[in-house]
Amino acid sequence: MTNEFYIQLALNKAWEYQGLTYPNPAVAAVVTLDGKILAIEAHKKAGTSHAEVLALISAYETLSGSKVDFDPLNAELSHNFLLTLPKNFFSKCSIYVTLEPCSHKGKTPSCATLLSKLQLTNVIIGIKDPIVGHDGGISIVAKGLLPPTITIGVLEEECQALLEPFMIWQNRAFVLFKLAQTSNGRIGGGYLSSKSSLRHVHKLRDACSSMLIGGNTVRVDRPTLDCRFIEADAPKIIIYSKEDNFDRDIPLFKVENREVEVVDNLDFLDKPSLILVEGGEGMLKALQKKIDWMLIYQIPKLSTHQLSYNTTMNLAFLHTAKKDIDLMIWSRQIGH
Amino acid sequence: MTNEFYIQLALNKAWEYQGLTYPNPAVAAVVTLDGKILAIEAHKKAGTSHAEVLALISAYETLSGSKVDFDPLNAELSHNFLLTLPKNFFSKCSIYVTLEPCSHKGKTPSCATLLSKLQLTNVIIGIKDPIVGHDGGISIVAKGLLPPTITIGVLEEECQALLEPFMIWQNRAFVLFKLAQTSNGRIGGGYLSSKSSLRHVHKLRDACSSMLIGGNTVRVDRPTLDCRFIEADAPKIIIYSKEDNFDRDIPLFKVENREVEVVDNLDFLDKPSLILVEGGEGMLKALQKKIDWMLIYQIPKLSTHQLSYNTTMNLAFLHTAKKDIDLMIWSRQIGH
Repeated sequence: MTNEFYIQLALNKAWEYQGLTYPNPAVAAVVTLDGKILAIEAHKKAGTSHAEVLALISAYETLSGSKVDFDPLNAELSHNFLLTLPKNFFSKCSIYVTLEPCSHKGKTPSCATLLSKLQLTNVIIGIKDPIVGHDGGISIVAKGLLPPTITIGVLEEECQALLEPFMIWQNRAFVLFKLAQTSNGRIGGGYLSSKSSLRHVHKLRDACSSMLIGGNTVRVDRPTLDCRFIEADAPKIIIYSKEDNFDRDIPLFKVENREVEVVDNLDFLDKPSLILVEGGEGMLKALQKKIDWMLIYQIPKLSTHQLSYNTTMNLAFLHTAKKDIDLMIWSRQIGH
Repeated sequence: MTNEFYIQLALNKAWEYQGLTYPNPAVAAVVTLDGKILAIEAHKKAGTSHAEVLALISAYETLSGSKVDFDPLNAELSHNFLLTLPKNFFSKCSIYVTLEPCSHKGKTPSCATLLSKLQLTNVIIGIKDPIVGHDGGISIVAKGLLPPTITIGVLEEECQALLEPFMIWQNRAFVLFKLAQTSNGRIGGGYLSSKSSLRHVHKLRDACSSMLIGGNTVRVDRPTLDCRFIEADAPKIIIYSKEDNFDRDIPLFKVENREVEVVDNLDFLDKPSLILVEGGEGMLKALQKKIDWMLIYQIPKLSTHQLSYNTTMNLAFLHTAKKDIDLMIWSRQIGH
């Protein structure tokens, strides 16, 4: 199969964790031996092992037929373990990564340094790290004792789309507008989504810098907006409202250790962050010029519910996946 | 990787030809060698090579590094060619097929007989052929000189969903309701879909038994409903209307060699066939109890267009794919 085939497998895996890796990028890696796929793994959460490391540990487990006796999400232990393997352990393997391996030690050791020591046959990269100061990973890999053949630029546009939130939140807020709707575009009417979709929303709430909601949502829906389905702390809430006249006795204000801020302007969007917006038509219209991406959970039904989004917006579909019985559709706003 | 992984690759490929293989089922096959993927191929059109044959020819080309000098879609030539290969040519290969290989010679030679002679290591089947008289393919494969290890029932539910139209059109009409809408469920407003979506619609029109439209569509939209984007003949049109008062000078009636029938009842749906419905809200409501599947082409925009489908219907999403800039969403109507 082509390089594109393996990078596409990695892309599909990486999208499962889009947004959840904040402030890190979504990245995934595939390890093969003579064309046989040994591992497909994605980076899951900042501070834990990168995609390359998880894929190499998983490839080790496939090849050796035994499980490692530590948590592969622990980057330090995983790096150290991989470096104790015989020099030729991965020497017939190839690794496909959606993004250039990291060049410097941050919260976890450098993947480029690791790859420069493992003497793989091929390293195939979707896209070079476009952030100045983050690049150079490939040069490090190439300076290994027995450097692999290196290929750069496979499904580059798709890998760039995967990376877009990360690029944006370097400099300002990345604004992700999330909504749930029926297949004929109706919203509201209580819980629309499946348990699996709800858990995913709660993971995004847990990963984001803040959630942004409108004053009307607070007054009318009186939501709690916590992360109870995944047992994580509730995210910080920013309420965008001209007036601060909210009933402090509603559940939103009663969640332990939860910060709630009421703002009458959008200046906070200048700050590097991941902002998850949950709102209705009013919020969509008020925020429209600021929305980077839409995440639509589409429910498998047509309904006669009257609520819908009556606005004009041009999108580009980026990725779609089944989430239990629902569809999850990621799209970018274009031309705004 | 697991059997499920390879069958899923086959499923994704087969869905590209859903409906287009009428009256045959949509089927795809993957051939591997020591876990390395050599070929992923789908059956494309009735009367041409089945998925197994196309995948084996493609695997031959991958292994030998040379192209065959005939059209692989020609089933007779392909079968004969595969039987001239050395007995051990595929002996280390596995084949994954979404459906049990056909047991008897129809328009093309039997795939089960072919597989019984090729001496592969493994034959992995998504689902047994559920049609009485069509089964028995696996028994034939098992009776080969050096029979492969046979595994049956991998992603069975998904393989059954893929097969559903085929099962239905054995006994009555399979009714596929096609529509194009924006991401917020608005319809109308001229050409909504991309060139690639339009070509796909024209392929479905070419493959179906008849297209079904409502009288209002004829009177108001005055469509041509041909297959000009793929240079195929226009499909037979059935107009469902209480009255036959149509202006015979509109383009619909002027297409060469095109049959148009006006009916005031739905009795024709009792006949085994593939009926492609293109209509608006009126047709959707009139036909709702008869609709098996919906095919929604979703356009990457929100719009304020007033037309929408104001009805209640429960669906199950079956498959989604990007079609150029659009999404193509296949779903089954449930609970009707």
